[in-house]
Amino acid sequence: MGSVARVTTINARSEESFDAAVRLGMERAQQTLRGVSGGWVKEQKVEASDGRITAWSVVLEVTFILED
Amino acid sequence: MGSVARVTTINARSEESFDAAVRLGMERAQQTLRGVSGGWVKEQKVEASDGRITAWSVVLEVTFILED
Amino acid sequence: MGSVARVTTINARSEESFDAAVRLGMERAQQTLRGVSGGWVKEQKVEASDGRITAWSVVLEVTFILED
Amino acid sequence: MGSVARVTTINARSEESFDAAVRLGMERAQQTLRGVSGGWVKEQKVEASDGRITAWSVVLEVTFILED
Amino acid sequence: MGSVARVTTINARSEESFDAAVRLGMERAQQTLRGVSGGWVKEQKVEASDGRITAWSVVLEVTFILED
Amino acid sequence: MGSVARVTTINARSEESFDAAVRLGMERAQQTLRGVSGGWVKEQKVEASDGRITAWSVVLEVTFILED
Amino acid sequence: MGSVARVTTINARSEESFDAAVRLGMERAQQTLRGVSGGWVKEQKVEASDGRITAWSVVLEVTFILED
Amino acid sequence: MGSVARVTTINARSEESFDAAVRLGMERAQQTLRGVSGGWVKEQKVEASDGRITAWSVVLEVTFILED
Amino acid sequence: MGSVARVTTINARSEESFDAAVRLGMERAQQTLRGVSGGWVKEQKVEASDGRITAWSVVLEVTFILED
Amino acid sequence: MGSVARVTTINARSEESFDAAVRLGMERAQQTLRGVSGGWVKEQKVEASDGRITAWSVVLEVTFILED
Amino acid sequence: MGSVARVTTINARSEESFDAAVRLGMERAQQTLRGVSGGWVKEQKVEASDGRITAWSVVLEVTFILED
Amino acid sequence: MGSVARVTTINARSEESFDAAVRLGMERAQQTLRGVSGGWVKEQKVEASDGRITAWSVVLEVTFILED
Repeated sequence: MGSVARVTTINARSEESFDAAVRLGMERAQQTLRGVSGGWVKEQKVEASDGRITAWSVVLEVTFILED
Repeated sequence: MGSVARVTTINARSEESFDAAVRLGMERAQQTLRGVSGGWVKEQKVEASDGRITAWSVVLEVTFILED
Repeated sequence: MGSVARVTTINARSEESFDAAVRLGMERAQQTLRGVSGGWVKEQKVEASDGRITAWSVVLEVTFILED
Repeated sequence: MGSVARVTTINARSEESFDAAVRLGMERAQQTLRGVSGGWVKEQKVEASDGRITAWSVVLEVTFILED
Repeated sequence: MGSVARVTTINARSEESFDAAVRLGMERAQQTLRGVSGGWVKEQKVEASDGRITAWSVVLEVTFILED
Repeated sequence: MGSVARVTTINARSEESFDAAVRLGMERAQQTLRGVSGGWVKEQKVEASDGRITAWSVVLEVTFILED
Repeated sequence: MGSVARVTTINARSEESFDAAVRLGMERAQQTLRGVSGGWVKEQKVEASDGRITAWSVVLEVTFILED
Repeated sequence: MGSVARVTTINARSEESFDAAVRLGMERAQQTLRGVSGGWVKEQKVEASDGRITAWSVVLEVTFILED
Repeated sequence: MGSVARVTTINARSEESFDAAVRLGMERAQQTLRGVSGGWVKEQKVEASDGRITAWSVVLEVTFILED
Repeated sequence: MGSVARVTTINARSEESFDAAVRLGMERAQQTLRGVSGGWVKEQKVEASDGRITAWSVVLEVTFILED
Repeated sequence: MGSVARVTTINARSEESFDAAVRLGMERAQQTLRGVSGGWVKEQKVEASDGRITAWSVVLEVTFILED
Repeated sequence: MGSVARVTTINARSEESFDAAVRLGMERAQQTLRGVSGGWVKEQKVEASDGRITAWSVVLEVTFILED
């Protein structure tokens, strides 16, 4: 037999740090998609106002198991 | 606090031009996904019959905001 | 006029071979998404226990037509 | 059975726009290679003289069917 | 002998189209850097409000000749 | 002394499997280009109708020796 | 109308962490370039002496608005 | 706590098929490195003599657990 | 004269954060390979159970000096 | 008006150095394709026997103008 | 504490060889930017007239230290 | 039957040129790994002091045959 999982891409923004953005993204994904098993960081960006960082954002590829 | 957006990939085909295909893709995405905020052109292809272009197609990564 | 299709990424695992994993992925995608028209192999991995392959997995970008 | 097509890379330059360069490239390819069925835009460059654009050039991967 | 040119990266946004954004970027670069000779399109993005495109933006690598 | 070989890109489609598509591509290349010595798999795609795979296609970079 | 921003690449090193290196890089950029609006992490490296990390360095693409 | 695994790159050649080359590579790796847990296919090439395939070769990144 | 260093790839997992995983990987590498001088982060992944992060893992390319 | 050039990929091997392999490749290309105007080095490999280099090879993308 | 360096991209052309083009580029960069510490070769191209190489050009990412 | 080779990554630095760094790397690899058969240049960097090149370094993927 085998198994199939789906991968969706999300963009999570936090005001604290990259790690916090990753945590936020995974939690938010779990609210809409059950069985979230992993995440792959594809990009890391910061937004700034006159050089002071106002947001840390990551693009995450989130894997979740498809129920049968 | 923070925010999370989802990114979905669409393939849009137009008979006119690449720009027209981008416009079509963003409009169509908005019909199914509310809060479409941006699009990133990942690929540009043309289909042809004996060298005459019959379709202009783009692969777009479309970002839309997840409501809480 | 034009047309728009969506592209979703799935991760399919089979105990037999890469081709079998591709077949499984396309079939499973069709159960949830109608009009599945193609798939692009993005990655190929194997899982092993002491060197003996226990699973063949592929990451597939699956294209399906959006009904109007 | 199956089929085999060849892919050749061309560099097309137009004085008008990127879309015009793509059209020119596909037409020119059809004069030497019959059965031109598609083109993939690999690169887009402009040449300029003191900031005024003098040429729009694209690198296209053109697919054409091999007759048996 | 030889010659050396510098390459700078700019991000140009237009409300009309990608080609217009490229033109704007090359003109603007020429105001600060003399001898602008070419531009390579690295990325193409659109910004939208509820699916209607509000801006077409390109990332351009602009080459300009260093005077001796 | 040295040697020069040419590399051409072909797109081969088979109704059976990826390996079959590679075999077909190499055989077909040999009919037009003598001295075919190798092939590098650049892409692997499947075409499907309602999830059932109708074609397995590979993009191959085929190397052949140029006679002097 | 439209707008043009410039993108410059900087390499920032901190003795504490990757996040600290990003913060340092954005602050330093703002001292020489006004209107720093964002930063994209391109690379992350650590320097070590016998396995103990002595520096965390990031390559950042920093975007800043060009005044007219 | 945590864990550390090493990744080594191997190039495996078989006279039968790509899958056979992957199997051969994983078995051979296990003879020299204990705890081989996975493999990622990085490249797939064929060698041919006048178009007839004489070898199927894969480049594999093999992961194995480091004992403490 | 010159010098030669070797580069090995390791995959380090920590239950705390990405930075912690990098630290762990560099320390562990130093136990088996003397003269570890640097590390390049190639990938960052998280494992999760129902959205709660259970492991932060990085793929590191670690450079170490080859003694003569 | 505009112009179209073709790009072909060649693999050139020399027993002396990479530069020599590039020179050989461009000369050899000119014998079969008139109007060779440029070449882009895509890859550089060496073959060795017990560590002593026996061949320097480059993969070149050669551009040549298509006569009308 | 930490340090910040800037990275600028230059395109250097020499009539002799790739190494000569790299040397020229680094010397020229030092005339405008003090504290030039390194260069990373991003691209290597040759220009030719009927197959005879007229220029060897490299794209270099040059790192220079920002004075405080 | 088939065969398996291992690929290791080395970073070689020479004070003369890139070719010299490649030669040094292949010789040094042969001292520790028997059956070194090839090398693939992955990166080319120079170190400089005030613009004068002090070292030419290459990252090489070296292939060596695994004895049975």
